[in-house]
Amino acid sequence: MKVRVKVWLEEDGQLIFGKGKLDLLSAIVQTGSISQGAKKLKMSYRRAWSYLCAIEKRLGQPLLIRKKGGSDGGGTVLTPYAKELLEKFYRLDKETYQFIQSQYSKIFKM
Amino acid sequence: MKVRVKVWLEEDGQLIFGKGKLDLLSAIVQTGSISQGAKKLKMSYRRAWSYLCAIEKRLGQPLLIRKKGGSDGGGTVLTPYAKELLEKFYRLDKETYQFIQSQYSKIFKM
Repeated sequence: MKVRVKVWLEEDGQLIFGKGKLDLLSAIVQTGSISQGAKKLKMSYRRAWSYLCAIEKRLGQPLLIRKKGGSDGGGTVLTPYAKELLEKFYRLDKETYQFIQSQYSKIFKM
Repeated sequence: MKVRVKVWLEEDGQLIFGKGKLDLLSAIVQTGSISQGAKKLKMSYRRAWSYLCAIEKRLGQPLLIRKKGGSDGGGTVLTPYAKELLEKFYRLDKETYQFIQSQYSKIFKM
């Protein structure tokens, strides 16, 4: 047997994000665009866009900044708020994963 | 924002149980029957039965013992194996919940 764990954040009972949604934000930042980020995760642009709009509304804060033009041709970057949220969530998710694996070994294999 | 967590056990990539399914086992033990236990959780008897069969098969161990007749009219009880599994899982689930709440406060509200 294996133990599995899923962590997510909610606001007023509504999903803000779990790891899947954060992977979308990471993919957008890596690729520099919502459409490429969505493609990387095999998600439709429409779905990615509507998710992002819903979350920004729930949080009352923008998550992405669209940089136009420039020598690097622009791109989509995270707001400082979103970057902090992403880092904190990954930390919490990782620590929880480590905790549960160690507790599982202790409790189930003692 | 609130943090949420879900813990479950798998065998060969297939669900063994999470809290919902363990609540079914608890309800069966409390009420003394599969049909009453399923009713308590607003689950159909058919669904409860097929879940139990599938899990026993995956674990290769019976979870329930059907006691017939006797002065108390019989009833359904957990096997010692199932009882231990249930206790260990509830402990792991509770400890993980406490861990994540405390880490969330530390990481997100610092």
